[in-house]
Amino acid sequence: MKHKGILVVVSGFSGAGKGTLMKQLVKTYDAYALSVSMTTRAPRPGETEGKDYFFISKEEFEKKIADGALVEYAQYCGNYYGTPKEYVEKQLEHGKDVILEIEIQGALKIKERFPSALLLFVTPPSMKELKRRLCGRGTETEEIIRARLSRAGEEAEGIEAYDYLVINDDLETCVKQMHALIQGAHSAPLRNEAFIANIRTQLEELSKGEK
Amino acid sequence: MKHKGILVVVSGFSGAGKGTLMKQLVKTYDAYALSVSMTTRAPRPGETEGKDYFFISKEEFEKKIADGALVEYAQYCGNYYGTPKEYVEKQLEHGKDVILEIEIQGALKIKERFPSALLLFVTPPSMKELKRRLCGRGTETEEIIRARLSRAGEEAEGIEAYDYLVINDDLETCVKQMHALIQGAHSAPLRNEAFIANIRTQLEELSKGEK
Repeated sequence: MKHKGILVVVSGFSGAGKGTLMKQLVKTYDAYALSVSMTTRAPRPGETEGKDYFFISKEEFEKKIADGALVEYAQYCGNYYGTPKEYVEKQLEHGKDVILEIEIQGALKIKERFPSALLLFVTPPSMKELKRRLCGRGTETEEIIRARLSRAGEEAEGIEAYDYLVINDDLETCVKQMHALIQGAHSAPLRNEAFIANIRTQLEELSKGEK
Repeated sequence: MKHKGILVVVSGFSGAGKGTLMKQLVKTYDAYALSVSMTTRAPRPGETEGKDYFFISKEEFEKKIADGALVEYAQYCGNYYGTPKEYVEKQLEHGKDVILEIEIQGALKIKERFPSALLLFVTPPSMKELKRRLCGRGTETEEIIRARLSRAGEEAEGIEAYDYLVINDDLETCVKQMHALIQGAHSAPLRNEAFIANIRTQLEELSKGEK
């Protein structure tokens, strides 16, 4: 079976290690393409156009919205962030599974619009480990860390909407697990409608006695 | 995470190779236990008690039904067939994934009663291949083969109720794929309720500032 790619949405707590995981996944296996978001915020030092983000103006972004050229978009702190549709569709057509990182509200919108999208939720092995990672750099105040944990609590309410929980303990193990889950998802009936329709047609013909 | 086992239901067209697949799966990996059905029909030459079936009397079987000692049961051609509950539950508790072969009606009953059961549907790569396998022995009449294909057509109507389609082309590849799908299924939120509840409790405590 030649598969069309799957749209894979990755969410998870800040500090869960999503970014590293996704980069490693794309680096390790040829099957994936990482979707790069568009944003209207200014590039930060070290950020590369087309790699970290596509940086565009507010007017250009609103034109994209009007043209239906975004898979999903959201506004944070007065800036737009969105997923360009053309890149995603082209990669999916070429059979690549497209990985995008979106927070839970966006993930639910994606699932509504693309029922065959696969939703992965990344979590550290324990919340103490999450706190340890958040505290790791030692530069954040107790108050900020507590706010992030509280935000994580809100995100945790949505876990059941995801197809799989990915526990990020060891990077390599976790990348392998993500790969297995995404490849496995290709076998769901929902993602094999043409194959199933074909089975049914063939069976009908064969049971009628046609060769 | 120490997992409780998953109840894995395998269905598929007659001629799809389910039996061989399941035996090979259980032989290759330590994670699985094969559920042996009970039946009231007489043993056929070569069949072993406790391996092919548990052979019991009609009275004993009806007592099992009355006692709720069966996971599911059905009647074919005047004989009962059923899945003993005690064996399944014991294996699941020990963390083994229990594999049982049931046709679609039974599979749907299982899913209703055990929502965390995993349903796999096995199919040959094409229906011409299915016909080739059904004709293989050369001992069946065209009429019987056509009846089986017609029965396969009815079964094909239910494929969407299954979690995964398993295409049995090459035995070894297929066994690996089944293993990956079952192991992946352990990561679904549905099968990690305790872990998720624990995440939520921990996050609540941590964001309140408790250590």
